[in-house]
Amino acid sequence: MIIDCHGHYTTVPAPHTAWRKQQLAAWENDQTPPAYPAIPDDEIRESIEGSQLRLMRERGVDLTIFSPRASAMAHHEGDEAVSRQWAEACNDLIYRVTQLYPESFAGVCQLPQSPGVPIANSIAELRRCVEELGFVGCNLNPDPSGGHWTSAPLTDRSWYPFYETMVELDVPAMVHVSAVTNPNFHATGSAYLNADTTAFMQFLQADLFEDFPDLRIVIPHGGGAVPYHWGRFRGLADMLQRPPLHESVMGNVFFDTCVYHQPGIDLLFEVIDIDNLLFGSEMVGAVRGIDPQTGNYFDDTRRYVEALDLAIEDREKVFEGNARRVYPRLEQLIKA
Amino acid sequence: MIIDCHGHYTTVPAPHTAWRKQQLAAWENDQTPPAYPAIPDDEIRESIEGSQLRLMRERGVDLTIFSPRASAMAHHEGDEAVSRQWAEACNDLIYRVTQLYPESFAGVCQLPQSPGVPIANSIAELRRCVEELGFVGCNLNPDPSGGHWTSAPLTDRSWYPFYETMVELDVPAMVHVSAVTNPNFHATGSAYLNADTTAFMQFLQADLFEDFPDLRIVIPHGGGAVPYHWGRFRGLADMLQRPPLHESVMGNVFFDTCVYHQPGIDLLFEVIDIDNLLFGSEMVGAVRGIDPQTGNYFDDTRRYVEALDLAIEDREKVFEGNARRVYPRLEQLIKA
Repeated sequence: MIIDCHGHYTTVPAPHTAWRKQQLAAWENDQTPPAYPAIPDDEIRESIEGSQLRLMRERGVDLTIFSPRASAMAHHEGDEAVSRQWAEACNDLIYRVTQLYPESFAGVCQLPQSPGVPIANSIAELRRCVEELGFVGCNLNPDPSGGHWTSAPLTDRSWYPFYETMVELDVPAMVHVSAVTNPNFHATGSAYLNADTTAFMQFLQADLFEDFPDLRIVIPHGGGAVPYHWGRFRGLADMLQRPPLHESVMGNVFFDTCVYHQPGIDLLFEVIDIDNLLFGSEMVGAVRGIDPQTGNYFDDTRRYVEALDLAIEDREKVFEGNARRVYPRLEQLIKA
Repeated sequence: MIIDCHGHYTTVPAPHTAWRKQQLAAWENDQTPPAYPAIPDDEIRESIEGSQLRLMRERGVDLTIFSPRASAMAHHEGDEAVSRQWAEACNDLIYRVTQLYPESFAGVCQLPQSPGVPIANSIAELRRCVEELGFVGCNLNPDPSGGHWTSAPLTDRSWYPFYETMVELDVPAMVHVSAVTNPNFHATGSAYLNADTTAFMQFLQADLFEDFPDLRIVIPHGGGAVPYHWGRFRGLADMLQRPPLHESVMGNVFFDTCVYHQPGIDLLFEVIDIDNLLFGSEMVGAVRGIDPQTGNYFDDTRRYVEALDLAIEDREKVFEGNARRVYPRLEQLIKA
């Protein structure tokens, strides 16, 4: 079985996106947004079957851990109520996909984060998505300000109530920022990668996983810059008199394989323990084109992993076993 | 000849650092700072010979392109006048090192940047350092706010007057941020790498090098996350309908070899053209310890490059030729 831990619903039916625009316009004009539109199942099927599901089938992916479009979370837009309504709408849509294609999709939720709003206010939506909608994890935005980094680091105690709930529900979080308003950054080109690197360094510096030994965090996009600079991070842990990374961080942190060329995947698997790697593609997502150097899609990351010629038990870990361990709530979905 | 393009004077005599503290305290109290202290040549010799120069000799490095300590630039502290006075003091100290050891050090200057202050105000100090002190380049901070990213992107026209002067003087800039006040970031662990990735993506998105075909930019720390995600950046250029990277960016952008483990260096040389790579170590710098996996210093990057077993002409490019091409003002120093 091949599980893709990192898929976003980027091909949503048009009425969903149109409603978001209406919602934000209403907020700006201090009005009540219109009711969320009725979207027939067929529109959802159409939006999935011609893109995500077709690509999954073409690439031999059985199950995608599926979350709302990351760049559209836009936690910096509107206010807390706007974010809550939008997160609920996005998560409900993911839920419908998981119900239409229960063998192909498991849900991961967007949170109703908003700049300056305590993360504890996102607990109810996490709980609803996990307990009522059967979701297996969440996307946690370390910078809901949209590129201004006004929140406390992820290791700050203000995040702890949320981690307590994650541990209680036995779900992991993927660290994932969203669109940015800061013109210095490009969402998929620098903001995402920077956030990955930033989060890892925060974890390196603090005792978060001593406080939460069962907390599990997925850092996407192959861990940002971290594996490429693995020596730097090992050396910084030493200089900062922190424990070695495998003791203090890598029991709880996992990287996906969203690295869009063979040399990057080669390095990732060379320096990071196989138990910390989860197959992921981030599709249909950041980079949709075909690499002229290979003739294959940049984000067809399965090819790169297959080219490694892993031992059979390592291959099973990356494609399935590690995902089932990090997202244990997958068990009931896969069995069902 | 082996040229290290990235060395910082991190072992400055104590009076220099003490004066900076006094300078900032005076600014906070609206007072005039004390006069900059007299530092005898012997104190400078002591600060260099036991550390930077000893390490250079041990590692067989002939010449270091040497700039003030990056984290101490702290452009966010004080105001423009404070930054100017501090930049001048730091650059003058670098100048003294280059005069005491003309065969071993070439100067690169810190700029008197300050948040909200036009970069044009840094032109005079660049000119002084190049024309009067014989410096060969500058460190350009894309985020003088100290981790809040309040400036315009490096491709914004507000930076153009500075680039015009760089081209006129025929000196490159290394993109280099400094200490951060934003608690989300660790200077050497995430802020530096994020800035490298951010700058590259800015260059990818804009026509800066069409406007300045002779502008040369060094992105340090092995290019941040860029080489590891080279497929992503190639794919983004395609998606954003930008020219291929080798056309639009890599004629003007160079990466150093400050990557502190063999797999990272292997990847860097696999994906980036040899003409775009400059040997660098960032020492005495970010990571000072010994890698228990190798028994060698993390930042002894010459070992990693030597282990590549490059063709003799490629080796010469990385260790010397590319640096002489990117920093053409080295010629007169090496000949002298």
